[in-house]
Amino acid sequence: MRGAGTRLEEEKALKSTEGPAYEGLSGTLAARGVDVDRVEGRLRSQRLETPSWGYGDTGTRFAVFPQRGVPRDPFEKVADAARVHGLTGVCPTVAVHIPWDRVDDYGELRGHAESLGLRIGAVNPNLFQEPGYRLGSVCHLDPDVRREATDHLLECVRVAGEVGSDVLSLWFADGTNYAGQDSFIERRHRMVDCLGEVYSAMPESMRMLLEYKPYEPAFYHTDLADWGAALTVCQKLGDRAEVLVDLGHHAKEVNIEYVVALLLDEGRLGGFHFNNRKYGDDDLIVGSVNPFELFLIYVELVGAEEHSETRIDYMIDQTHNIEPKMEAMILSVMNLQEAYAKALLVDRRALDEARRAGDVLGAHRTLLDAYATDVRPLCAKVREDLGAAADPIAAFKESGYAEKVAAERGEGAGAGWS
Amino acid sequence: MRGAGTRLEEEKALKSTEGPAYEGLSGTLAARGVDVDRVEGRLRSQRLETPSWGYGDTGTRFAVFPQRGVPRDPFEKVADAARVHGLTGVCPTVAVHIPWDRVDDYGELRGHAESLGLRIGAVNPNLFQEPGYRLGSVCHLDPDVRREATDHLLECVRVAGEVGSDVLSLWFADGTNYAGQDSFIERRHRMVDCLGEVYSAMPESMRMLLEYKPYEPAFYHTDLADWGAALTVCQKLGDRAEVLVDLGHHAKEVNIEYVVALLLDEGRLGGFHFNNRKYGDDDLIVGSVNPFELFLIYVELVGAEEHSETRIDYMIDQTHNIEPKMEAMILSVMNLQEAYAKALLVDRRALDEARRAGDVLGAHRTLLDAYATDVRPLCAKVREDLGAAADPIAAFKESGYAEKVAAERGEGAGAGWS
Amino acid sequence: MRGAGTRLEEEKALKSTEGPAYEGLSGTLAARGVDVDRVEGRLRSQRLETPSWGYGDTGTRFAVFPQRGVPRDPFEKVADAARVHGLTGVCPTVAVHIPWDRVDDYGELRGHAESLGLRIGAVNPNLFQEPGYRLGSVCHLDPDVRREATDHLLECVRVAGEVGSDVLSLWFADGTNYAGQDSFIERRHRMVDCLGEVYSAMPESMRMLLEYKPYEPAFYHTDLADWGAALTVCQKLGDRAEVLVDLGHHAKEVNIEYVVALLLDEGRLGGFHFNNRKYGDDDLIVGSVNPFELFLIYVELVGAEEHSETRIDYMIDQTHNIEPKMEAMILSVMNLQEAYAKALLVDRRALDEARRAGDVLGAHRTLLDAYATDVRPLCAKVREDLGAAADPIAAFKESGYAEKVAAERGEGAGAGWS
Amino acid sequence: MRGAGTRLEEEKALKSTEGPAYEGLSGTLAARGVDVDRVEGRLRSQRLETPSWGYGDTGTRFAVFPQRGVPRDPFEKVADAARVHGLTGVCPTVAVHIPWDRVDDYGELRGHAESLGLRIGAVNPNLFQEPGYRLGSVCHLDPDVRREATDHLLECVRVAGEVGSDVLSLWFADGTNYAGQDSFIERRHRMVDCLGEVYSAMPESMRMLLEYKPYEPAFYHTDLADWGAALTVCQKLGDRAEVLVDLGHHAKEVNIEYVVALLLDEGRLGGFHFNNRKYGDDDLIVGSVNPFELFLIYVELVGAEEHSETRIDYMIDQTHNIEPKMEAMILSVMNLQEAYAKALLVDRRALDEARRAGDVLGAHRTLLDAYATDVRPLCAKVREDLGAAADPIAAFKESGYAEKVAAERGEGAGAGWS
Repeated sequence: MRGAGTRLEEEKALKSTEGPAYEGLSGTLAARGVDVDRVEGRLRSQRLETPSWGYGDTGTRFAVFPQRGVPRDPFEKVADAARVHGLTGVCPTVAVHIPWDRVDDYGELRGHAESLGLRIGAVNPNLFQEPGYRLGSVCHLDPDVRREATDHLLECVRVAGEVGSDVLSLWFADGTNYAGQDSFIERRHRMVDCLGEVYSAMPESMRMLLEYKPYEPAFYHTDLADWGAALTVCQKLGDRAEVLVDLGHHAKEVNIEYVVALLLDEGRLGGFHFNNRKYGDDDLIVGSVNPFELFLIYVELVGAEEHSETRIDYMIDQTHNIEPKMEAMILSVMNLQEAYAKALLVDRRALDEARRAGDVLGAHRTLLDAYATDVRPLCAKVREDLGAAADPIAAFKESGYAEKVAAERGEGAGAGWS
Repeated sequence: MRGAGTRLEEEKALKSTEGPAYEGLSGTLAARGVDVDRVEGRLRSQRLETPSWGYGDTGTRFAVFPQRGVPRDPFEKVADAARVHGLTGVCPTVAVHIPWDRVDDYGELRGHAESLGLRIGAVNPNLFQEPGYRLGSVCHLDPDVRREATDHLLECVRVAGEVGSDVLSLWFADGTNYAGQDSFIERRHRMVDCLGEVYSAMPESMRMLLEYKPYEPAFYHTDLADWGAALTVCQKLGDRAEVLVDLGHHAKEVNIEYVVALLLDEGRLGGFHFNNRKYGDDDLIVGSVNPFELFLIYVELVGAEEHSETRIDYMIDQTHNIEPKMEAMILSVMNLQEAYAKALLVDRRALDEARRAGDVLGAHRTLLDAYATDVRPLCAKVREDLGAAADPIAAFKESGYAEKVAAERGEGAGAGWS
Repeated sequence: MRGAGTRLEEEKALKSTEGPAYEGLSGTLAARGVDVDRVEGRLRSQRLETPSWGYGDTGTRFAVFPQRGVPRDPFEKVADAARVHGLTGVCPTVAVHIPWDRVDDYGELRGHAESLGLRIGAVNPNLFQEPGYRLGSVCHLDPDVRREATDHLLECVRVAGEVGSDVLSLWFADGTNYAGQDSFIERRHRMVDCLGEVYSAMPESMRMLLEYKPYEPAFYHTDLADWGAALTVCQKLGDRAEVLVDLGHHAKEVNIEYVVALLLDEGRLGGFHFNNRKYGDDDLIVGSVNPFELFLIYVELVGAEEHSETRIDYMIDQTHNIEPKMEAMILSVMNLQEAYAKALLVDRRALDEARRAGDVLGAHRTLLDAYATDVRPLCAKVREDLGAAADPIAAFKESGYAEKVAAERGEGAGAGWS
Repeated sequence: MRGAGTRLEEEKALKSTEGPAYEGLSGTLAARGVDVDRVEGRLRSQRLETPSWGYGDTGTRFAVFPQRGVPRDPFEKVADAARVHGLTGVCPTVAVHIPWDRVDDYGELRGHAESLGLRIGAVNPNLFQEPGYRLGSVCHLDPDVRREATDHLLECVRVAGEVGSDVLSLWFADGTNYAGQDSFIERRHRMVDCLGEVYSAMPESMRMLLEYKPYEPAFYHTDLADWGAALTVCQKLGDRAEVLVDLGHHAKEVNIEYVVALLLDEGRLGGFHFNNRKYGDDDLIVGSVNPFELFLIYVELVGAEEHSETRIDYMIDQTHNIEPKMEAMILSVMNLQEAYAKALLVDRRALDEARRAGDVLGAHRTLLDAYATDVRPLCAKVREDLGAAADPIAAFKESGYAEKVAAERGEGAGAGWS
């Protein structure tokens, strides 16, 4: 009988850059006219941000299943994020969430991160947990509640300055549960007023990202329900207000890559929250439900990269309810590396030719050709070149990190979500 | 055994304004503080536009079931529309579709309409049936096809002038069926270019309505897929470009009344295509699937009417695949009258009070109170005051119109859709 | 300026059975040939079960907003349920949830209920909160976990006996989050084995209801995902295993009244969990999102009542995240009374005639006629006849119950959900 | 500049079984412990049925865009199907549709097919196009219409005998468009009666497949709306009545591979209609929207193949509205070959081990490992071994077949759909 160890050996052989897999793939690609060095260069420059809250315990409304070894404080979350970066090579920043990551000395948190080769990325306020926000935060009818909410946003602007971040990433749970409960338009005006104050307080170098979501936790309407709602608010705020696309925040029939393209064309695509879902906002591992969709999104992004200097923040936003959190995060990063790699392999010249010829299936098959390619050896090579792991999950398992933190941290602590 | 005739008598009694029903209702409403005269006045000024193509044979991709008596030409469609207006009192315009309603002398068509107490409303171009539009019209990669499409739109601007219309109502089937088939962004730029030329050609008094739709007939992406896509194109064109909301053109989870409110707030709600659906773009009778949603949309519209002078074109857009077309149209008009009446009965002061008090269920129940009211006697009274029928469907059946046109027109003609 | 008090007076006048509203309605209905006494009789015999957990604090995965005065133990939940029954007249049973309602002496709980005029209804096990159920309960691969789950179900059979209940109502959160995680078929066989043991342990008088749900908390697959899945398991268990329909547990496009009809025709419709939703399993107030759908479901039930002796358990299952819980429960009950009343008003003879004549719109309009009727005076009359309140919400507010329990109970206690 | 010709050369090189691609892949697989010969053997025995109507003109309700060279009669459709088989090696049968494929002498059609190396597969009746079926066929309230529908089904049983087919594949458009239009239950009983007569008339060797669909062309309810509805009818008919799964016929949130597994477990999975969709029943090329879902379905099928002798008919059912029909069909076949190949590569032992260990991500990644594999060289090798083409689309283009039939057949003829 074959043990798990044996299988690990085989996997390593398959993915090793020493073996024939990489040689075969790069040879094949070169024969197809692909500039493999350039593709690898772009893969090495990929940047993904992991979220501090993704390392802690999370769950559904029905249950939170605690896991051993989850971080007990923001410093340990940063440590976990640093480990993911060490294994994958492309995750040099970690998003923080206030108040879950509130510390006495943000300079200390920043220094801790930098000592581990990491920087603090987007600062995410929390305007949905306090009892006062039962009927909304920046959209609440009570000006005192809006004041409190705005003050929290201003606090986050300050925190961003202290941790060295230039991104304020905003998601609002604001909405209503019953028809008639409040005025759509008045709520919108309240939001624009509050955000206008925050926008004015941001230093010139800082950007504000506005995330939209169709429902949950609000079940009748959400104040920023779709990209149009977020975009029109951004238009009122200024150029440094941009839209954030969370892959799980769309009605079931929405073509997300099309939304991405429109936002790129409007110059307002600020960033992503990557995850995946089959039903609602399931927050599963990136690429675990529909990897082809993820590839198609990257096809748009690769095209945009070549035509503009737009900065886009690529962030992961997941909750790992039943699976090991760090392994899940690593898998997401790998899936994003593979999606990007495949998108880079699209034969753009052939695609343009087919489109110009009105060759529907020729154009489609050009994407299929790239998507069908097994890019794992290429991604492994890139990770090795970055000083990370060819097979990050195997390396993580071998490292004993999970066992070590489980012993040190025990049950962890609900520093966050639950 | 009770015959259908007897039931008709009963229905008439129920709905008659002579009987106790209207007296009871208006008394109850007055006792609740409703200004019944004002409500009736606004109901009398309601305006709905019926579509010429709604009187002809339509169907699904699987079958078109021809009905006897459908119009053989645009003049007969106008006659049917005039009959609907005569019975309901609130449908003084009819939308036309070019080329389905193309005639040699548009002045004659206009005169025909006016002789029947009707005006020609929105002019609707057709850019989806010609073989040349297989891969798109204004978004097509071939400039010759775009030229042809733009010329057709310019023709429609001229037709609008000749028939006395000031509305160009645009729906584009443009989109792709397969990932990669064409560039989202290039297609969008092509559309903006073509529409810019058309916009410039419109007289100052004319408005352009842009309709969006998530899918069908395009099955991978549609170039104007949602309200955000339509709005951002309108922003590029000018103030007289506005968004048209078709109730059947939303992803399943979209809160339509919220979209209506946002478009109102942006000053870009140009009009409606009313119909209803349970699944896709089913184009069923207005209010037949979710009458509460229709009511909620009207609640937003009633609120907006009181605060602005915005012109909104209220149009019906249905296909009657298995049911009698004129009866279906009349039922839709009645359902729209009832939805508007109920929205007018909402106690706005109580609503505001409840909202200000944070009384979630109080605000919600204020809407429920209006919705639960049986407004049929009120609508019957208003129709009678307008010289139309208290019970339009009974009156239509008694009139023998259907039998008359069936005898005259026979199988009708595929002047349109099929 | 008119105060809320004044509005309450008006509402009472509107709904009072002394005033003209009831007289007018019953007269109109009688004139239409409705046997009003018979309708009232059936309305008086309507039975709805409220859930003990609906009186406690609940929320989303993002937040639980505690409310003052929520029950601190099962006895107080029963007291709240008794109050709802007192005000509405049709809620003589309360469902319990084990372990949330676990007490040392179930006989005492039963006696407490009976002393308040209530009986204990369905017993609901909980197999989704314990850490051991992270990967499932009766479908878990580990036989020890399945043993534990089965034992809990057997405990609930015993509890049912002790509280005088004859219904075991089962919902399983079992499912997987990632493709490949476990075998669909093996999990199903494990479930059938466990349930077979429980079924055998039930006394002859007891029924087992199986609830299905497409997703949440499982996000890749759920072991009982739709009515077909639940029905086929029931077929394997025996005649006293029946399907429970929760209105929020369907994919977005499902026609629920059709599913209800099929289950009736199969003789396997065991009961309902009433609530409403616009998006996911939102668990909002019954009838608050799509009251027409609720009416259509009752149209099927009224038809079935006339043809069979099937017992169906009508239960409410809601979570009240932002609104007052008892007011929300009362409103749900009233909405269910109105839906049933309207369904009873459908002119079945006219409906059959129209159907037999192939008169699509005639049949449809027969339903619309019943639905448009303002049945509130009728329902108020029925409630008064039952010794309950004509206007239960006003009566509840006037009673000071909410203030009283808030003072007594304070913040309540997380006896349940959160 | 590189021409299309050059690209074709490269593609051939990539896919050739002479080159290093196959050697590299088979070596890697063998190193992983895969029995490559066995996998190839099962791939060679894959069987897919193409539909005669997929070769003719089809479209949406908005337009049918005719293509040059489409078949003018059933014989030419069979010829096209034979060509697809010749190029792919796995499509030895063609489904026919009556009356679209009605011929005077079915023996001649059968002989024609056999002379081209083909057999006639499933016989598909048409009960949705005749005006008499406006309100239904086997569910119609009029017994004369049901008689006509049943007679047509009996005709198809006879046709099946004459063409040598043992499969009757039934899809019903039956349903209603408006609430109340007809009785769900009575319609169901009518269907069971009609199908019972047909079932009795089938020879012992013949199977009846029942297809379900949630909506379109019926827009309120469909008589066989989901797998539960189809299964319960099959249970009433007998063992040779089985359910047919069309990938486009599910509500948006349905997990199709789970439905497949349940039907396998019930012993009632009769066959597939393969296609793909992003929105409604879009009938696009198999695997063009969500290839991972297609793979997951095959993972279930591969598992079932190993445990039973169940016969499943794998059929393609697509409409090619804008793309070349034969190229589209070939691409679908290739996508099905690749999905099957990947499913065969799943390391079942590793999967079982991970599941038994409760290793959620280990089990999931076992599927990902197979899915990420570039199986194109393997499929090319298998096709060559079958005497078909390594690169069927390139071979088809080189063959000049499309140009030849365009010249011979011209505009084709609407032998079917439109």
